[in-house]
Order: sequence, then structure tokens, then C-alpha cells
Amino acid sequence: MKVAKFGGSSLASGGQLQKVINIIKADPKRKIVVVSAPGKRTKDDTKVTDLLIKYCNTVINNEDPTGIQSKIIQRYRAIGEHFNLPEGELQPIITGIEQLATQVFPSRAYQMAAFKAAGENNNAKLVAAVFNHQGIPAQYMNPKDIGLMVTDVPNDAQILDFSYKQLAGLSEYTKTLVIPGFFGYNQAGEVCTFSRGGSDITGAIVAKAVAAEEYENFTDVDAIYAANPNIIPNPRKITHLTFQEMRELSYAGFSVFHDEALIPAIEGKVPVVVKNTNHPDLPGTLISETKPIDQKNIVSGIASDSGFTGIYLRKYLMNKQVGFTLKLLQILADFGVSYEHMPSGIDDLTIIIRSRELTPDLEAKIQSRIESEIHPDDFQITHNYAMVMIVGEGIQDRIGTMAAATASIAAANVSIVMLNHGASPVSITIGIRDSDADQAVKSLYDTFINHKPVHLMDGIL
Amino acid sequence: MKVAKFGGSSLASGGQLQKVINIIKADPKRKIVVVSAPGKRTKDDTKVTDLLIKYCNTVINNEDPTGIQSKIIQRYRAIGEHFNLPEGELQPIITGIEQLATQVFPSRAYQMAAFKAAGENNNAKLVAAVFNHQGIPAQYMNPKDIGLMVTDVPNDAQILDFSYKQLAGLSEYTKTLVIPGFFGYNQAGEVCTFSRGGSDITGAIVAKAVAAEEYENFTDVDAIYAANPNIIPNPRKITHLTFQEMRELSYAGFSVFHDEALIPAIEGKVPVVVKNTNHPDLPGTLISETKPIDQKNIVSGIASDSGFTGIYLRKYLMNKQVGFTLKLLQILADFGVSYEHMPSGIDDLTIIIRSRELTPDLEAKIQSRIESEIHPDDFQITHNYAMVMIVGEGIQDRIGTMAAATASIAAANVSIVMLNHGASPVSITIGIRDSDADQAVKSLYDTFINHKPVHLMDGIL
Repeated sequence: MKVAKFGGSSLASGGQLQKVINIIKADPKRKIVVVSAPGKRTKDDTKVTDLLIKYCNTVINNEDPTGIQSKIIQRYRAIGEHFNLPEGELQPIITGIEQLATQVFPSRAYQMAAFKAAGENNNAKLVAAVFNHQGIPAQYMNPKDIGLMVTDVPNDAQILDFSYKQLAGLSEYTKTLVIPGFFGYNQAGEVCTFSRGGSDITGAIVAKAVAAEEYENFTDVDAIYAANPNIIPNPRKITHLTFQEMRELSYAGFSVFHDEALIPAIEGKVPVVVKNTNHPDLPGTLISETKPIDQKNIVSGIASDSGFTGIYLRKYLMNKQVGFTLKLLQILADFGVSYEHMPSGIDDLTIIIRSRELTPDLEAKIQSRIESEIHPDDFQITHNYAMVMIVGEGIQDRIGTMAAATASIAAANVSIVMLNHGASPVSITIGIRDSDADQAVKSLYDTFINHKPVHLMDGIL
Repeated sequence: MKVAKFGGSSLASGGQLQKVINIIKADPKRKIVVVSAPGKRTKDDTKVTDLLIKYCNTVINNEDPTGIQSKIIQRYRAIGEHFNLPEGELQPIITGIEQLATQVFPSRAYQMAAFKAAGENNNAKLVAAVFNHQGIPAQYMNPKDIGLMVTDVPNDAQILDFSYKQLAGLSEYTKTLVIPGFFGYNQAGEVCTFSRGGSDITGAIVAKAVAAEEYENFTDVDAIYAANPNIIPNPRKITHLTFQEMRELSYAGFSVFHDEALIPAIEGKVPVVVKNTNHPDLPGTLISETKPIDQKNIVSGIASDSGFTGIYLRKYLMNKQVGFTLKLLQILADFGVSYEHMPSGIDDLTIIIRSRELTPDLEAKIQSRIESEIHPDDFQITHNYAMVMIVGEGIQDRIGTMAAATASIAAANVSIVMLNHGASPVSITIGIRDSDADQAVKSLYDTFINHKPVHLMDGIL
């Protein structure tokens, strides 16, 4: 049995849904289908999820919702009409969209979660109806009915472990099941969504629960690329990644497959295949627990992500004080801030944090507590750091990869502000300035993917 | 005014003490002399401090101490006889050594501290007596009388801040003052020593207290070398280091000048000069707050130190948990263990600890608490790591130093197990295996000190 998840662009129109139908028909093992909300049909189109967020805000502001309601309903209707779906079959969807406006919620956070989730939920109903009309015996399954229970965090929930047992029964149906992605229910029965893009997570959870032989993630790219196509034109397609390589690449900006969605796949050891709905015959990218190492192409991908902030502290004899870092991390934890890296010298320490975790006000509060409790000799906050990552199984044991990476960055005339190596066996992470990121990625791509020789510049030393 | 500290080898014999006398006479600014205990006269000799430790254990075991007593007394007598010092002047020293055997102490830790401190204390008495006989008006000063008060940690004390005010008065004497290094008194009046080699610390404290224009540290090497002479034959002599460079080099095994002794010098902005008692005309090594950067020789020294242990943890979604590292460091702090470096990946973390902080029993306890409280997916303890450090002011801003360092290590066929960069502006620290340390230092020395070109090996990538 395979679980197939289709992203928003794969379900944006009747024409796209026809491709999905062909894909499902082509392989009888595809018994569980997880769907996103309809995405963009053209570059300037608006995703249904974004229409729903606007709808929610309209309701909150006590404005007339009928305009935005019909815009949303029209998206579903257009797909139904493409397949000549009788109007009666659209009625549950229309009612579902309209009723949101008058429904009562425990708080605005739950309200927003329910509005957003309606995009997937109604699409699952529609897709199941179309499947049935197109000769695929199908059944819509609501996450509440199948026991997909999540933590009580309205817009950033996580799966509750006992859900897996409840979901295991999904493997016993003969019909093709159509499940909305992106959300579950808390134990009080309220809708809570995963983080944005979370339909991938639903697919992975279901795939783990039914012990699927494969979790197919259909999207609109032929494969995962070895670098961001906006930086490297026509980058190499990756045919095979390990779970860990994918985790590291996701962390630093590879967004094809949702970061958190890997966890259930890893736990269930379910191989993931990222494929293109528009070119289903291409092999795509396989992500699995292990892979044969290609000694000539040890690096799978080069990622980069901006938006990091460094907090630098200097205090003499710091490393003699047991619990110094402890006190520092306690201050960060008190403010709910998690850190990413923490390179340390003898008397100094830099804490790298995602800038989105901070605000100017929070930075001032953190600084004030650090100064009053730790009395550093020096304290500096620096913004606009980027992290570049070179990811590949076996990279840590390979003599010379670090040399090649740092030489490649030097050849691009880029300063290294942080280098944190020694924990992950599959990656090298290098901190640079935001403005240098693209340049560094280009040079690293040339070095590790294109195998262009890199030379240390004369006169460096 | 200069404070001059003489190490054990500079005071090991009458012949050596004669050199000290010449040095003091050569510069009238040398008004305060801090002395170590007599050290080794030949390679196979025993330091007086080690004889005193043996003496202490003899007393503790209720064995006859007369043999070891006379061995110790003979060391001082030999020096006195060299200068024809009347026997009467030796009497306070003989009494001081003998009385230790019957003295009562609050605990064995205080007992050991007092025995060890007797080496310096009696040497200061002897040196003052000899000075007076050789035409240098001199006065022995006991740390208690001059107010050198320390924390109540018998064998690893630290200076109490108010001591500085008390010691400031030392600048007002006209005679040359001879002060024993290595120890002070707690507020209950018991002897507490600094860590081993701590006479350097006394000298630095006194130099800061009297705002000396220079703190001269006389030892038995011509200068601080750019690398360990046991690894690199005839290494380059360093003429000028900044305080921070010295701190970093001391951390990784440069033991010419005591690590902790730098702190008072830094605080008091007192330039330190390391000189050779046997070649006092050589310039030695100046250590000061700033220095002119030599753009062609940006690296001052290459250090390496073995004896590190890595604790590796892996846990999925680790970096999503605020407070994960906090919990981990709390466990270490509960066991009184401080860490050195902590490189982290997305889902993994390595904590580098000095192996001397651990025992097999402690490791097992730490592992057990980590496993029960943090539930890592993977946990490994690896011993026998070494750290190599490349130290030089301005190294962080120089594009290509990291590339050259890692290429140099790769050229030596050495794997990098840890690289922690981004906090210290003056050093690059690289973790490798113990057995690779000498090889790495040799290669880095060739690259950064000898300026031999380093090439990335063909076929690395």
C-alpha cells in the first residue's frame, strides 16, 4: 500500500485533478490520498488557504463575508464543473464554507485554525466525489472520525502518539480513501492545524500508521534539486537522499518537503518519494533510511538560509565556571527562545538564534538580564547572518571536505563568521553574512557538485 | 617599578641564584621579587615542592619524617653555603620545615597546602637573606602580613578582590621585597595555595596591585615559542603576543606562563615579559594588551592539547525544544563538570569535556541521567580527542585562514572531528584524534609559520 499526497498546485484546477486521477489509476497500490487545499493556477492566482485567512479576518472584523465566500466556493465549483459534478454534490462544500462565518470558537486562534483547515477539508470532499464520478471508488475521511488527534496548539499542533493506533485501521478499507491534510483535532474536538504546509505531515503520519511501503509526495517539481534554482540555474536533480540528509537540507531552506513531515517517515521507516504531478513518469527523489554512497558525489546538496542573529559574550575565565552557559540558556528559555548554534572560545561565546525568534524589545530584555546576572566583559548583538550547509552522507569522515569547503568560500572572497562542526555526521554548517550567501552557494556548488578544482589564493597567508 | 618573578629552575642552586642577583642589580626598577620553590638542578633531580608533598604524606602516614626533612633542608642549605650564609640565618628555615610535622591543620587538604607552600615561603626567606649578604637591601614579606587573602579552597584558591588594596602599599618600600609565590591565606588564617605553578599568579597579582610598569617572568627558556619544541625542533621565538593570544595558547598547552596569571595582568594592564634567567640580555617575549599586527605573520603560535572527551547525543527535533541543552547542562553542572565546546547539528550535539573532569564512574552516572531525563535516540562517549589551536590577532577577519588551516590538516592526512569557530576573534580551534595531534601541529606550523604553500590534494572531492 502507498500513501499519495498531492500539493496545492496539483489540485489547483480540474485539469490538474485529471492528472491526479490518472496517477491514482496507474497504480492500484495508491489506496490512501492526502490532499492540500487548491493552490495557485497561475503565478498571480491566490491560494484557497490565503482566501480563507482573508475570509476569517473579514468575519472577525464584522464585515460582509459574502464576497470572499463566493470567491472560495467558486474555486471548488470550477473544479467540480470540469468533471460535470452535479451541483448537489457541491452542496456540502458550499454549506461548509458558509457555516464558518457563524460558527463559535473558543478563541481567535482556534477560529483561524478552523478557517484554514476548511481549505483541505472541503477539497477532500470534492476530490472524493470526483474520484467516484471518474471510476475510482473513493471515500472522504474526516480526521476526527479516523482519530487523528493532535496537541492543543491551534495553529502549530503536533500529532498525539496514540493517534497512530487509531489510524492503523485505515489499511483495511477497500475503497480509495481521501483524507484532508494539514489538520487534526484536539481532545476537546476543536480543529488544530499543523504549521503551514502541513499536509505533508498528515501524509507522513498516515503512511507511518498504515506501515505504507512508500509515501509519495506529489508536487510541481521534477525532483529535489542539489541547490536552490533561484541561485543556481538548472541545478542537479537529486535521485536519492537519506532521511538525515533531507532533515539537514530542510533546516537550511530546502522547502520542497516539509521539515516536520520527515519525522513520522523516519520513525516508521517509510521511504518517501518526491514526484511531479505533471511528469509522473520521472523517478523524482527517493528519501530513505540509507543509500549506497556515491564516492564521486559525496555531497548531495548545498543549502543556505538567512535570518540568523548572533549574541556574543566575552567574560574572563568563563570556561572555569561550571554552569555559566547554563545560566545563559536559562535566561533564553525564560523568554521562550531556542538557539541554533553556540560556538565557544576560551573566554567568549556566540549564540546563534533564528532572527524570527527575536524582536528589538526581546533583545533588549535579554541583554538587560544577561548584563545584570552574568556581567559579561563584552556583549554584542549582530544581525543578518546566514548559514550555508554542505550536506552529504559520509562527509564527516572524508579528509579534505572541510578544506575544500572553506577554500571554496575563500575563493568567493567571503568571510567565515561561524563554523560549527563535530555533531552532525552528514553536514558542514558555515555561518557567513547574509549578503554573501548566494556567492558562497555558487562557489560551493562549483566545488562539490560541478567538481571544479578550487585553489587557495596566492598570498593568503 | 617592575615586579620580577623567578621560577624554580632559576632558584635551584647557588649558581642559579647568582644569576638572579645579577639581574636584580642590573635594573634598579626591579623592586619586588616573587620566588618559586627551588626546582630541578638536573634532569633527574626532584623539585622541593615534590619533596614537600612526600614529606606531607610521610607525616599523614605516621612514618618517620627525619629523612625527608633533612633532604629538604639540605636543598636550602646548599644554596646558603654557596653564598657563605651563616648557619644562624638558615635557622628560621630549618625550624619552619621541621615544625610542619607537628603542626595541627583543620583538614588534610589544608595540611597539604601548608606543606607545599613551605617550599616558596622558606625560599623567600633564604633569597632575602642572600640578597642582603650580596649587597641588595632586601626584606622577606609573608603573604599574611601584606594582606594577600584568597578564597577558602586549600589547593586551588583564587585571590579575594580586597587584597589588591592591601597589597598596593608594597610600592612604598625602599628595600627590595622578596615575596613567596604560590599561596595566600584564607580569612581564617590558613594557608591556601593557587593551582600548581601558581607563583606566576602571585607575581601578577602583586604587579597589578602596585601598578607595575612591567611584570618580568624569569624562567629557563629564551622566549615563548610558536610551537612546542618537543614537536617542532627550534621553533620560532615569539617576540610579542597580546593578552588574548596568550590566553588561548595557554589553554591549549602553552605552559611557559600560568594560564590564570594572565588575569590580574590583563585587569591591571601590566605588560608581561617572559625572559630567560640564563640569558637575561635576550628580549624574551612581551605580552601586552595590543600589538602592531604583522600582516605577513598573522599567526603567532600553534598549540595542541590532548585529553578531551566527546559526549554525543542525537534526538529528533531536538532544536525545536527550548531548554533541551539547558537540561543537559544542568545534569553536567549537578556533577560539577564544566564543558569546553558544544558543536551542534539539527538533531545532534557533541559536548567536549576535559577528560580529567571525568571518571568511568562519573561517565556512567552522567549517561544514566541523560538517558532517563532526555531519552536521546543515540548516545556515545568518545575519548582521546585533542584540540589544536591556531592563534593570531586578526585571524577571524582574514579570508582564507580557515581554508589554509583545514587544507593543511587534510594534507597531513588527518580527519577533523570538531571545528568550533565564531566566538574567539583570535583563534581557530580544531578537534582531531589524540594520535594525530603532532602530525597536525607539524603541518600547521609549516603552513602558517614557515609559509610553505599548502595544496588541496587531487581527487579529494
